[in-house]
Amino acid sequence: MIKCGVIGYGYWGPNIVRNLSNVEGCEVVAIADASPAARKRAHKAHPNLRIEADCNEVISSTAIDAVAIVTPVWTHYELAKAALENGKHVFVEKPFTNSSEKAGELIELAEKKNLRIMVDHTFLFTGAVRKIHELIQNGSLGQLYYYDSTRVNLGLFQHDVNVLWDLAAHDLSIVDHLIDAAPEAISATGQGHLNNHEDVAYMTLYYPDKVLAHINVNWLSPVKVRTTLIGGEKRMLVWNDLDADEKIKVYDKGVKINSREGVYDLLVSYRSGDMWAPQLEAGEALFRELSYFAECIGNGKTPFNDGRAGLRIVRMLEAACQSISKRGEVVAL
Amino acid sequence: MIKCGVIGYGYWGPNIVRNLSNVEGCEVVAIADASPAARKRAHKAHPNLRIEADCNEVISSTAIDAVAIVTPVWTHYELAKAALENGKHVFVEKPFTNSSEKAGELIELAEKKNLRIMVDHTFLFTGAVRKIHELIQNGSLGQLYYYDSTRVNLGLFQHDVNVLWDLAAHDLSIVDHLIDAAPEAISATGQGHLNNHEDVAYMTLYYPDKVLAHINVNWLSPVKVRTTLIGGEKRMLVWNDLDADEKIKVYDKGVKINSREGVYDLLVSYRSGDMWAPQLEAGEALFRELSYFAECIGNGKTPFNDGRAGLRIVRMLEAACQSISKRGEVVAL
Amino acid sequence: MIKCGVIGYGYWGPNIVRNLSNVEGCEVVAIADASPAARKRAHKAHPNLRIEADCNEVISSTAIDAVAIVTPVWTHYELAKAALENGKHVFVEKPFTNSSEKAGELIELAEKKNLRIMVDHTFLFTGAVRKIHELIQNGSLGQLYYYDSTRVNLGLFQHDVNVLWDLAAHDLSIVDHLIDAAPEAISATGQGHLNNHEDVAYMTLYYPDKVLAHINVNWLSPVKVRTTLIGGEKRMLVWNDLDADEKIKVYDKGVKINSREGVYDLLVSYRSGDMWAPQLEAGEALFRELSYFAECIGNGKTPFNDGRAGLRIVRMLEAACQSISKRGEVVAL
Amino acid sequence: MIKCGVIGYGYWGPNIVRNLSNVEGCEVVAIADASPAARKRAHKAHPNLRIEADCNEVISSTAIDAVAIVTPVWTHYELAKAALENGKHVFVEKPFTNSSEKAGELIELAEKKNLRIMVDHTFLFTGAVRKIHELIQNGSLGQLYYYDSTRVNLGLFQHDVNVLWDLAAHDLSIVDHLIDAAPEAISATGQGHLNNHEDVAYMTLYYPDKVLAHINVNWLSPVKVRTTLIGGEKRMLVWNDLDADEKIKVYDKGVKINSREGVYDLLVSYRSGDMWAPQLEAGEALFRELSYFAECIGNGKTPFNDGRAGLRIVRMLEAACQSISKRGEVVAL
Repeated sequence: MIKCGVIGYGYWGPNIVRNLSNVEGCEVVAIADASPAARKRAHKAHPNLRIEADCNEVISSTAIDAVAIVTPVWTHYELAKAALENGKHVFVEKPFTNSSEKAGELIELAEKKNLRIMVDHTFLFTGAVRKIHELIQNGSLGQLYYYDSTRVNLGLFQHDVNVLWDLAAHDLSIVDHLIDAAPEAISATGQGHLNNHEDVAYMTLYYPDKVLAHINVNWLSPVKVRTTLIGGEKRMLVWNDLDADEKIKVYDKGVKINSREGVYDLLVSYRSGDMWAPQLEAGEALFRELSYFAECIGNGKTPFNDGRAGLRIVRMLEAACQSISKRGEVVAL
Repeated sequence: MIKCGVIGYGYWGPNIVRNLSNVEGCEVVAIADASPAARKRAHKAHPNLRIEADCNEVISSTAIDAVAIVTPVWTHYELAKAALENGKHVFVEKPFTNSSEKAGELIELAEKKNLRIMVDHTFLFTGAVRKIHELIQNGSLGQLYYYDSTRVNLGLFQHDVNVLWDLAAHDLSIVDHLIDAAPEAISATGQGHLNNHEDVAYMTLYYPDKVLAHINVNWLSPVKVRTTLIGGEKRMLVWNDLDADEKIKVYDKGVKINSREGVYDLLVSYRSGDMWAPQLEAGEALFRELSYFAECIGNGKTPFNDGRAGLRIVRMLEAACQSISKRGEVVAL
Repeated sequence: MIKCGVIGYGYWGPNIVRNLSNVEGCEVVAIADASPAARKRAHKAHPNLRIEADCNEVISSTAIDAVAIVTPVWTHYELAKAALENGKHVFVEKPFTNSSEKAGELIELAEKKNLRIMVDHTFLFTGAVRKIHELIQNGSLGQLYYYDSTRVNLGLFQHDVNVLWDLAAHDLSIVDHLIDAAPEAISATGQGHLNNHEDVAYMTLYYPDKVLAHINVNWLSPVKVRTTLIGGEKRMLVWNDLDADEKIKVYDKGVKINSREGVYDLLVSYRSGDMWAPQLEAGEALFRELSYFAECIGNGKTPFNDGRAGLRIVRMLEAACQSISKRGEVVAL
Repeated sequence: MIKCGVIGYGYWGPNIVRNLSNVEGCEVVAIADASPAARKRAHKAHPNLRIEADCNEVISSTAIDAVAIVTPVWTHYELAKAALENGKHVFVEKPFTNSSEKAGELIELAEKKNLRIMVDHTFLFTGAVRKIHELIQNGSLGQLYYYDSTRVNLGLFQHDVNVLWDLAAHDLSIVDHLIDAAPEAISATGQGHLNNHEDVAYMTLYYPDKVLAHINVNWLSPVKVRTTLIGGEKRMLVWNDLDADEKIKVYDKGVKINSREGVYDLLVSYRSGDMWAPQLEAGEALFRELSYFAECIGNGKTPFNDGRAGLRIVRMLEAACQSISKRGEVVAL
């Protein structure tokens, strides 16, 4: 039985506690949060659990094997470091840390101590992303052309980071998982309207073989949009995460270039066919992810969403911020 | 009575002929197209009109007062120049020309000859853009934050330009009209997958006062999207040009920044209210535009979508292409 | 070459003329309309055609082989009768006639004269209905459960009939075509709010084997809806005729009844799978229908949408009106 | 403090317990369910509550003031009767009972004992229905023309009733609340495909002044639909309960009848204007309803969704079933 402690009981913490409790072989034994209101909520929902104000009570507890860190990003490094030093496996919210240097340190520390780090890239465990991954891996889409995500809504949940660190972190974890290559360079633009942190931002990732990824994130949108277009040589798909029943639509559509025949002629021929919305795996993504966390602790395997994956995302975010400050100037990775 | 000749009877030409014919005080007297198939179609639809293979027959005809140039962009300069030299007013498809230098020459020539140039920025005459213009002008949206347009579909209609010159030209004419300022700089990214011309491209325009415009254009999208988000301090709007009945939705939503109160607290307060979809002016935009063309010829007034407006768009396109070639490096305007 | 005359150049007539003109082996030689405005429009669009005020000029013309009757329903019988008596094949708008008795007379007359009657049930020639027909015929849906159509909008185009004769006539022609059986009985309800003709109406058709068809038509709806649900034992489909790209969605969903196991247990098991939107045949339905008309004239075959099909629809409409007047009392067919 | 017991911890029971617990002045003290699995779930969620297998332990407990009956409809009468006889106020799931006779008995018993009965017509407490009620009451819609609801999905949750008793009960409670008149008569049609209970059904309610209500319910639909059209003389509205943000859209559209002017002329003139989506009251409807229950117990007032309201719905359901068995024959109320 893996005994778990959860640090942070704000917006996402309750979901971690609820799901961890349902994972076979896992048991939540303590929750820590500095806020009295959060502790009150935690106690009401889990009257039989140990609730602490001081997270060190959890981190240093010998009764605990693993710690979930569900706090703002600027606190991740200190908490994760302390947890690793105390011999705990670590499950940490995305983004992993607020600097690639700190991420590197944690990775090293975990390796030295032979402990697992898992970064909470929940989307990778959704039925939608798993299906897209499958369609790319089995060649259904053919050679990738582009990945284009729009993730906008009215919301500004964090005051210590810009919209890229909040929203684009999701998209980066997804492209990192889906695209079998590392980005060569990043160009990003954006603007802060309410304070100095960008609330509207755009980034383009250049991959080998002409693959382009573009991410549009915005905290000042009147409507919520969660739509990704993925173009491939053979097929194209639309992932609308807000569609309750048909999140992924695969289009048997394509374009082939033709020889030039005259001023008004088209350069391309279009193939248009059926559309298909595959049924997606049901169940909660976070539950699958936490089960995988328990499994990796159990068998000592490195999760694919480990500290190195978290570090790759942090590096992209750092590059994007650097590019934004120079109004789009490309930053090599 | 303004006697008009139309050069080019491909995809858009028939609409020009049909609408010009209905404009009070205008008469289409001749159509020219080098393609026999186009001439056949023109003859079938307009059995009583003069149909020419050689456009010079139209351009040099003394029976003609104005010429509509509805041909690929690389032909605009030569045709417009000849028309102006022959004393004709000119209505020319967007983009105005394929270089700002040529655009400047045409503007000068028209001024010397006291002739009108109108660039076909049809969108400016739609009920939707007119309503948005009104809402910005009368302060309904408050200080602008951003303009974010997505204009994607499966289509590659021109082999001589990239997707920016084809699709983004629309958006640029719209932001040029809506935003009461000139952009300071442009950053653009993109990629050509089928040939060297970009089929997927993104551009960010930096305006004074933190106003940002972003344009997403794509010829390789499985679905057609024509959606623009506009954020303002007071209200925000969504313009979905594919919605038959409710193209514009105005949201009484806003964000106000608050003082910092703690780690988990929000930085902002949200205002959320009713949504309102104003009824838009009915009627065909192109008819309104061509009526305005006739009116400007009649009273000698300079249209707001004149050669200078056309030139501004061409300059932005040139800057964007320059930026794309350097992977997003900002180009000052 | 089949020489055609078209009677009626109101809303639908221009489409008939345009499509007939494009049918191989057909030629429109004359148009008749009593309204000077309609004749003016006809002349403008077809300057080389004979335009008559008196339809008898067309009906009795020896230069004409077939007549398309595109006038209000109460005029169909007289016009069709005269046309048949003059030896013309007849293409007539839906509904065929305003009484089953008159429909019977026309059928008899046509048979005696060996002439073709085709009733304009355009929907049967759309890609959507053809695909649904195929899916039912090839067993993809399995045993049919129900057909449920909603056809509502703001519109009252005819003052001589109620909404059933206007809108439900479409649905009845479709169910008549799709369901391989005759309805046993009809129950209908409705109400006229603006005058005595029902502007809101509902009808249920009872078919053998528990197949139920329901039709909801409404001239007083703020939004336009054209949606049909079709449930089958194996699969179910949704036909949204207003969806530009995915009119038909086939759901691999089903229900199977189980034995009863307890108060809170479900009686049924659900099967849920992929959704599939087949590409539909492109092209204009009316063109296909008129080509088929020409083909039937040429080879002497009876079209499936002949007078008898028209009569079946008229009988259902009569039964529905009888039922409405008794507030839903079932009328056997 | 009102001490509450909850009978039934199936699908809806947990919501009742959770919301009742949050109502000021209320306390849930016991839950009863015959199913061991349900009791296990109840215990896990509420470790400190008394959980009983035998509902009589709750109904007869002197420590309890009010009982919520959240069980299948055929058990309501016995349970409610016992609760009232034991001096408990009663909150009971819709439909109130499975016969109007039993409903009448319960009403009488409650009056004799001076106890409250509230029937759980949750929809009446949603922001959507409250807004529609307001728009009808303040004359915004003008004279009502029709109410037309479609409530379909794939689901068959109850084996003891047909789809009318399950789904249409919601719509009937809503029309009963919104329309200031009693229906005069009902015609209903339907069919059971999987067993003898109708899984597809339609009903029309005739109200005075030409007001018509129509309800379409279906357990065999591949898609979930929750859409209601309401037409009025002045304005019309669409209520789409599945739209997260804009559930109600009010259309400034109307129709006025004109004098007849000719065969092709329209009978009516159309008014078309803006659309408006009012912001709706936030918060959970069930919480508002249960707060109102507590309030009515506290001040002795009769709730508007009392036993008599429940009885009216049951009578309509009985009439509809009677009509269905005669294939639509109207049943007077």
